[in-house]
Amino acid sequence: MRRAIELAARGIGSTHPNPVVGCVITAADGNPAGEGFHAVAGGPHAEVEALRMAGPRARGGTAYVTLEPCNHTGRTGPCADALIEAGVARVVYAVPDPNRQASGGGDKLRSKNIQVEQGLLQAEAEAGNHIWLHSVRTGRPFVTWKFATTLDGRSAAPDRTSKWITGPAARADVHRHRAECDAIAVGTQTVLSDDPELTVRDSDDVPAPRQPLRVVVGDREIPATAKVRNDRAETLLLPTHDPAEVLRQLDDRQIRHLWLEGGPTLAAAFLRAGLVDQIVAYVAPAVLGSGFAAIGDLGAESIDHLRRFNLLDVTRLGDDVRLTLSPLGGK
Amino acid sequence: MRRAIELAARGIGSTHPNPVVGCVITAADGNPAGEGFHAVAGGPHAEVEALRMAGPRARGGTAYVTLEPCNHTGRTGPCADALIEAGVARVVYAVPDPNRQASGGGDKLRSKNIQVEQGLLQAEAEAGNHIWLHSVRTGRPFVTWKFATTLDGRSAAPDRTSKWITGPAARADVHRHRAECDAIAVGTQTVLSDDPELTVRDSDDVPAPRQPLRVVVGDREIPATAKVRNDRAETLLLPTHDPAEVLRQLDDRQIRHLWLEGGPTLAAAFLRAGLVDQIVAYVAPAVLGSGFAAIGDLGAESIDHLRRFNLLDVTRLGDDVRLTLSPLGGK
Ligand SMILES: NC(=O)c1ccc[n+]([C@@H]2O[C@H](COP(=O)([O-])OP(=O)(O)OC[C@H]3O[C@@H](n4cnc5c(N)ncnc54)[C@H](OP(=O)(O)O)[C@@H]3O)[C@@H](O)[C@H]2O)c1
Ligand SMILES: NC(=O)c1ccc[n+]([C@@H]2O[C@H](COP(=O)([O-])OP(=O)(O)OC[C@H]3O[C@@H](n4cnc5c(N)ncnc54)[C@H](OP(=O)(O)O)[C@@H]3O)[C@@H](O)[C@H]2O)c1
Repeated sequence: MRRAIELAARGIGSTHPNPVVGCVITAADGNPAGEGFHAVAGGPHAEVEALRMAGPRARGGTAYVTLEPCNHTGRTGPCADALIEAGVARVVYAVPDPNRQASGGGDKLRSKNIQVEQGLLQAEAEAGNHIWLHSVRTGRPFVTWKFATTLDGRSAAPDRTSKWITGPAARADVHRHRAECDAIAVGTQTVLSDDPELTVRDSDDVPAPRQPLRVVVGDREIPATAKVRNDRAETLLLPTHDPAEVLRQLDDRQIRHLWLEGGPTLAAAFLRAGLVDQIVAYVAPAVLGSGFAAIGDLGAESIDHLRRFNLLDVTRLGDDVRLTLSPLGGK
Repeated sequence: MRRAIELAARGIGSTHPNPVVGCVITAADGNPAGEGFHAVAGGPHAEVEALRMAGPRARGGTAYVTLEPCNHTGRTGPCADALIEAGVARVVYAVPDPNRQASGGGDKLRSKNIQVEQGLLQAEAEAGNHIWLHSVRTGRPFVTWKFATTLDGRSAAPDRTSKWITGPAARADVHRHRAECDAIAVGTQTVLSDDPELTVRDSDDVPAPRQPLRVVVGDREIPATAKVRNDRAETLLLPTHDPAEVLRQLDDRQIRHLWLEGGPTLAAAFLRAGLVDQIVAYVAPAVLGSGFAAIGDLGAESIDHLRRFNLLDVTRLGDDVRLTLSPLGGK
């Protein structure tokens, strides 16, 4: 199963809107016979890949899968059927499929007298799929709020300029994170003041293979000349102020992971609505002493209203520091 | 010399207003004969301690000292004379004494035909004494600005409450730092709103042996009932707004290391005057969204006015993060 989890991780960032899945098949004599992972939505599932490699040696063997085998026909046939046809005697999976449409694979296998076991290394396997699982379980995308700030909590100077608060290592890290999400959102004001492109660029400024959906939230019109309107990625304009409505619209489009890049007003609206699942803060060793705060008003009047988070990680990136936080209580 | 530097470090926090000094003496045959360090102002100097341990074996031997042996009679006699009387043949010291009153020890030793060498492990030895060296070279105390802040740069809520932004590990660290400085300064407003005691307390709330001088800067009167006026430490009221004048007054009292605890207005005045030599920021994984900024106005209008610092260290302390910064260009 550990090997299956490793295999699953190879799909991270390319299986959208599907989960990552890994599978290892051992023959009846216990020797490894095949392995596979889900590489890209629409492509073969992990079990099918592993069965293809195992060939006739799958008969009487065991399949180890990180997620309950699916039981519905989507772009590919049900994996449960493929395992039945190949004649495997036993299926061990780590995480039950929370997706009502796809689940039932375990029951179907059992009805064909295949021995089914669930729960092996479940926590590790869940961690590898936590964004997808969160999104399927809650019915809305997982939201990461990203911001860059000075040590005194400023995201822009009084004249609204904010370029290069953080250095190249932090900016490259942002692009790595953008590449792993499905949508990037900002409020209209950030588009109007900064004219960001909101695409994934690698260090050579070459477009990445898959570009996340660009989302602009707010009523004001975005000029046709704005960079978010160029053809390097799709763009969705959402003329609403309701974060829950934003997430509903994104869930309809099967967005699993929303990367919320601000600005302070939009981020504050998400925080107040309790709709932030992770915070990634890039802190520059610098002070401004004036300008725009990194986060808009949250209604706090006294120190008792402080919103605390779990500190998950602290990493130095060049001259800057990245802090990763999650809501207390964890989600 | 490495051993002498280690010995010197044992005096950190207790030699004020003197430097830390370590000394190792080897006999004529090269074997270790004695060692010592300067433990407390008024107490024996490192060389005297080491000579006492070496006894007659010092004759014809070598003394390794982290700082040039002194040549003046203060609370103790000149170390140069002690080395001459003991008959050592060679003196190796790391750092020349920058203190005009005390220096000349090397010349005096040479005039008595003792072989003198300078510079061995100088950088390491300077690092161990950097606060004292800074203060003697510049004629003013080394200034560390300490502040506690939320991730969005707030030091207090709108109603001025600010207690417990950071957790117990960060607060214990502040007390360790306070114990190593000679004075703790705040502006009048911090005293009037928070009524801090500004003393060193260990984890059991027992008073530390030596309390730094408490300094309150500003014109307003401090009520007789304020905790800074209690008898647990000395207090100096400085009715001025000029940071340079504050440092002059503290230099007169032989303060080597000033720990500036804010608030934001006083800290901004020091930063604008270029009189901050180190910043220690305790960042809590929390946001407020409103309240008082960690630092007052610095006159920045655009992002080009950002004041950047070197990031010297990032350390996690419990749930919080401590960042240590120094001015770019280094002082
Ligand atoms: N350092 C960073 O990480 C970072 C990141 C982003 C932005 N910034 C800076 O932040 C500044 C922009 O700040 P901002 O806070 O005004 O930008 P913003 O949050 O991007 O945009 C605010 C606008 O979004 C719309 N909006 C959407 N949902 C809303 C809601 N629930 N409540 C209120 N308004 C909502 C409103 O515009 P409509 O009137 O159009 O509806 C509002 O004026 C820029 O100077 C930019 O440089 C910094
Ligand atoms: N989180 C933290 O690390 C931290 C640390 C300290 C304070 N705080 C919070 O900060 C708040 C107080 O902020 P603050 O900025 O008003 O406090 P402050 O800097 O301690 O005091 C400001 C006062 O100092 C005097 N002052 C001295 N030098 C000055 C100068 N060069 N320019 C102007 N004034 C000068 C003035 O008072 P006169 O009129 O008397 O001359 C001024 O009103 C409190 O709520 C406290 O809780 C937080």
